[in-house]
Amino acid sequence: MIKKISILGSTGSIGTSTLDVIAAHTDKFKVVGLTACENIGKLEEQIRRYKPSIVSVAKEKSAGILKDRCKDLKIEIHSGVEGLICVSTLPEADIVVSAITGSAGLIPTLAAVKAGKTIALANKETMVMAGEIVTKEADKNGVRILPVDSEHSAIFQVMHGGRWEDVDRVILTASGGPFLKWSAEEKKSATLKEALRHPVWNMGAKVTIDSATLMNKGLEVIEAKWLFNISVNQINVLIHPQSIIHSLVEFRDGSVMAQIGVPDMRVPIAYALSYPERLDLLMARLDLASIGMLTFENPDMKKFPCLAYAYHAIKEGGTMPAVLNSANEAAVRAFMQERIGFSDIEKIVGETMEKHNIMRADTLDNVLHADKWAREEAEKEISRIEGKH
Amino acid sequence: MIKKISILGSTGSIGTSTLDVIAAHTDKFKVVGLTACENIGKLEEQIRRYKPSIVSVAKEKSAGILKDRCKDLKIEIHSGVEGLICVSTLPEADIVVSAITGSAGLIPTLAAVKAGKTIALANKETMVMAGEIVTKEADKNGVRILPVDSEHSAIFQVMHGGRWEDVDRVILTASGGPFLKWSAEEKKSATLKEALRHPVWNMGAKVTIDSATLMNKGLEVIEAKWLFNISVNQINVLIHPQSIIHSLVEFRDGSVMAQIGVPDMRVPIAYALSYPERLDLLMARLDLASIGMLTFENPDMKKFPCLAYAYHAIKEGGTMPAVLNSANEAAVRAFMQERIGFSDIEKIVGETMEKHNIMRADTLDNVLHADKWAREEAEKEISRIEGKH
Repeated sequence: MIKKISILGSTGSIGTSTLDVIAAHTDKFKVVGLTACENIGKLEEQIRRYKPSIVSVAKEKSAGILKDRCKDLKIEIHSGVEGLICVSTLPEADIVVSAITGSAGLIPTLAAVKAGKTIALANKETMVMAGEIVTKEADKNGVRILPVDSEHSAIFQVMHGGRWEDVDRVILTASGGPFLKWSAEEKKSATLKEALRHPVWNMGAKVTIDSATLMNKGLEVIEAKWLFNISVNQINVLIHPQSIIHSLVEFRDGSVMAQIGVPDMRVPIAYALSYPERLDLLMARLDLASIGMLTFENPDMKKFPCLAYAYHAIKEGGTMPAVLNSANEAAVRAFMQERIGFSDIEKIVGETMEKHNIMRADTLDNVLHADKWAREEAEKEISRIEGKH
Repeated sequence: MIKKISILGSTGSIGTSTLDVIAAHTDKFKVVGLTACENIGKLEEQIRRYKPSIVSVAKEKSAGILKDRCKDLKIEIHSGVEGLICVSTLPEADIVVSAITGSAGLIPTLAAVKAGKTIALANKETMVMAGEIVTKEADKNGVRILPVDSEHSAIFQVMHGGRWEDVDRVILTASGGPFLKWSAEEKKSATLKEALRHPVWNMGAKVTIDSATLMNKGLEVIEAKWLFNISVNQINVLIHPQSIIHSLVEFRDGSVMAQIGVPDMRVPIAYALSYPERLDLLMARLDLASIGMLTFENPDMKKFPCLAYAYHAIKEGGTMPAVLNSANEAAVRAFMQERIGFSDIEKIVGETMEKHNIMRADTLDNVLHADKWAREEAEKEISRIEGKH
């Protein structure tokens, strides 16, 4: 049976890798829906190649331009949140790949869960902001959420042969980002260009900055808590600069199982799409002898407080993880606009969290309210910092 | 249900570790039979502690002494190959732990297979000498052979969640032994004491010498071929001096799964005894951050020809692996008696193999005939070398 696939965020890094996997396995997968934010040139190429029946873009104006360009094709073109939901709930889709960056992924992903779609989840913000709501809805609708993040995919692959009651802890590996060996002082004046220079993974800008602050790993800790229904106390982070061991699971007998491989997102994407089978992937094979050495160290939470903030947020619970995420999104955007410095990111996140009065995160309204509040608070702080320059 | 366990070779390294595991889980396991070669003092202690109903020792004379010492106990005491078989086929036993060193393990293990016992296999020689016969008998009798070697246990643990049709190759890790960094010239004059100084594992003398020549890894390649029913071309060896990654399996999608942990034989032993469950084991937990670094390199088959001989033997097939093993046993024994030098071991194995006319290895007679022939040939060469000194 050919699986029909919608991709939310098809022009991004995960989206294009997903299309690579699909292109190599047209006997197994068919694209039915795509969405993009702004890159309508690339989206048009994808439309012509993969022939989805429906697409959506962020802005109505872009939708108009795209309609004009694609008038020789039989295709529905939508825009905005409504358009995203149209694609994510498309009746014919079996799997929805949630690969939008940031909090914008939440609403269409939740809609897909409610529509009973299997979710291949790359948008960790969905779980960070609304883990309780999303997992409850997934349970209710018998929906399987398959991780696409390499770390969570590693754990998921290990646990295909394990029992959660035998697990003592999961260990998420982290490259440590470009500033692993920088002093706190040097890190303060890190430039945007330096922060975007990830040592291993070639990813989108937002997640690359998050890797430099270790916020990305913090978000992954929260995501893991919800995806695997485990206590945050069972989740450890281990710095592993080569990013060859993608994560590990320690069992009650001291045995540790790990998923390992060259850093290539096509592996976890393919696993999510073809689970429980594995696909033939033509790619560079792991050669540990030529890599020679793998190294490990504990994360320095003082130097990278965003990781500590994430642990704090999920332990506090309620709307705090959403606030962590939204404040971080606002701060990272401001850093990418070169309005603030690199270490202002952690400052803004910490201060916004401190001001937050936690609410329960069992309704989407509460979550979106906290999201809005956090963005506004963060924006105030960003303006204050700008004013000082 | 309490599993009843017989241990062949209970006073050796694997045997005592097995008893450690059992002692910590008396709600799950009960010892019913034990065998030892010569160490009747230790065996008596084990008898008094674990209260088996039957034991056996190598020599009739030792059995007599033991009977005298244990006359206050209700226990059957046997000797010789017949005694070994009595213990390995004991009707009440569910699992037979085959932990005798060397080719002496073959006959009682095969008897246990024929008697329908679940086998926890540490005696790799059983598979090296008679893999074809043993796997055929296991199939016929619906017997499960569970690996105890840490490498094979690692693969077995990984494959609990995998499908063999998805496997591209298995990668057996090897510490490289004490002579990994020695030149060929230095290695030639290695002493017995130096060869017995294993960098990681604390094992019996024979397997420690085999680790120094890499013959141990060669035997494991052959064992893996039979245990997992895979082509020898799918089996790679990777030098990994820290022995933390116990082995790896590469799947068709490039994903590599590994079992990792502190080097402690109780983990694979416990897994074999409790499979498919895992036991709580109180032991040091893996701390990769404090280990800091794992290294890898390809094996140098020129410097360690025994590994190449093993690949050659299993590719040739028939009685050649038995000859490889038996010549090696004779040579290692002579080295341990300081009758020959360290690099005479590889020389004797190579020369014996060269002289061998391969027979089919589908009858025990053929295997035992090849075994006897190889020992005699090796012994001739050993005497020649002694004569030269």
